[in-house]
Amino acid sequence: MTLPVLPPLLDLTGTAVFALTGALIAARLRQTFVTMAFFALVTGVGGGTVRDLLIGEPVFWLHDPWVAPVILATALVAWFTPSTWWAGKLLLWGDAAGLAVYSVLGTAKALAFDVAPLPAAIVGVISGCVGGIIRDVLAGQPSILMRPELYVTAAALAATLCMGGTLMGLPQGLVWSLAVLAGFVLRGAAVLWKIELPAYSRDA
Amino acid sequence: MTLPVLPPLLDLTGTAVFALTGALIAARLRQTFVTMAFFALVTGVGGGTVRDLLIGEPVFWLHDPWVAPVILATALVAWFTPSTWWAGKLLLWGDAAGLAVYSVLGTAKALAFDVAPLPAAIVGVISGCVGGIIRDVLAGQPSILMRPELYVTAAALAATLCMGGTLMGLPQGLVWSLAVLAGFVLRGAAVLWKIELPAYSRDA
Amino acid sequence: MTLPVLPPLLDLTGTAVFALTGALIAARLRQTFVTMAFFALVTGVGGGTVRDLLIGEPVFWLHDPWVAPVILATALVAWFTPSTWWAGKLLLWGDAAGLAVYSVLGTAKALAFDVAPLPAAIVGVISGCVGGIIRDVLAGQPSILMRPELYVTAAALAATLCMGGTLMGLPQGLVWSLAVLAGFVLRGAAVLWKIELPAYSRDA
Repeated sequence: MTLPVLPPLLDLTGTAVFALTGALIAARLRQTFVTMAFFALVTGVGGGTVRDLLIGEPVFWLHDPWVAPVILATALVAWFTPSTWWAGKLLLWGDAAGLAVYSVLGTAKALAFDVAPLPAAIVGVISGCVGGIIRDVLAGQPSILMRPELYVTAAALAATLCMGGTLMGLPQGLVWSLAVLAGFVLRGAAVLWKIELPAYSRDA
Repeated sequence: MTLPVLPPLLDLTGTAVFALTGALIAARLRQTFVTMAFFALVTGVGGGTVRDLLIGEPVFWLHDPWVAPVILATALVAWFTPSTWWAGKLLLWGDAAGLAVYSVLGTAKALAFDVAPLPAAIVGVISGCVGGIIRDVLAGQPSILMRPELYVTAAALAATLCMGGTLMGLPQGLVWSLAVLAGFVLRGAAVLWKIELPAYSRDA
Repeated sequence: MTLPVLPPLLDLTGTAVFALTGALIAARLRQTFVTMAFFALVTGVGGGTVRDLLIGEPVFWLHDPWVAPVILATALVAWFTPSTWWAGKLLLWGDAAGLAVYSVLGTAKALAFDVAPLPAAIVGVISGCVGGIIRDVLAGQPSILMRPELYVTAAALAATLCMGGTLMGLPQGLVWSLAVLAGFVLRGAAVLWKIELPAYSRDA
């Protein structure tokens, strides 16, 4: 089983988008540049770091010459620009793409290192979502996790399709592309039409 | 030194009980099924995951065919049943048993992998308690850790007895059984009679 | 590249000071001794634990005969003394020294294990600050991270100087000493004169 290699530019763009969402929360909370850089880091690499710790592989950004500089650069851009530039739909769509891509990437990496199928999909969901969860906990904000809007669900769809297609022996490029697309479309639909999952209501 | 092997059914029951406590918090907060499953996962495997990361062993649920399905099944059960079914004492007692068992299991696993005695007992306490702590932090609830009711203390008793008995070379089955029993009885007594530790009060 | 070996007494003093800051938060929140010990542990070893997990080395306090006992002893001292004894400037200065020392130690350890330069400095900052961040999140307090007062910045200065000096091939003892001194002085100045970084204010 091989590991999906994202075109490096796409990969770094995804990291930068995630990092930007972290930096913007720090901006909204009127924080300093150092805090902003810290939030950019945690959000940008948090999910991938937990993924690598879980599967016992070297943490990816410690040996990569680009990830850390890109995150610092993202924090600098966020610092020197009005945050209204980034408040629109662009960031939401970028985040949706990052969510789908990293959920599939995490699942595929876990499968490649012999993690069992269902746990591998869970690792994928964690890769996609945990950076944002840590960001929200640190900021004292209600977490993505607690909002009814579809978010973790889109990650779960992407991860499950990646896991299922790989188990069925379908061509990997096809599996990865379809899984990313499905996660992105579901998250995008949730953003456009505010699709929500039903909440628990079985006790009166 | 050998590792205690729980009868698999008992082990999975413990995981399911912990997972159920996570799912029920999500139910109380009126969350969706996906959030419920996430809380079940974090609570069910959180302590054991941190334990395995600390001692540098493969994370147990990634290579186990049963743990992840049992957690998903637990979340499904929690979703399709009224949470009042689970609100009674049954869950509290199950949680008490899980706390004692995993504290001993964590200590024994750490000792088996050559961790020094006192740190091994600390790893045991972490195994027993950290899943619940992460659950509470994510849910924005006041944590177990901050309530005066005996909880971490019961884990500490079980872990310390396991560490002490093992150091004294007593038969392992005996040590593990007594340590689990002691932790369970102490936590049970705290539940029945609301036993609390004194709070710090040395500054006027 | 060699690893800086702190004189053991200095190293343990640093751990004890960090642990004391954790115990004192628990005292202020009127917690029990067990909670106090837990906070002392998390604050004392949290940063170093995350550092060791990130770089894939054995977690330092699991195989050290002194760290865990020193932390327990610190919690006992905090429990049996009025917290007003510790409320003064002494603790702030000790914390400033610990912050600078561990940021440099973390950077040097990461560089010694072949982490790339910028990530190594980030690992150093994490070593210095994360224990306090986990402490604040668990206690439900606004984190160091979110206060404008220079704190993470002092860690970043110490880590960056350590990384830069090492890259330039300067004598290691000199690099480490100067980096620690610079971080300590900056944090000390922030304490004395309440130096703050500017906050983000680019959106009206």
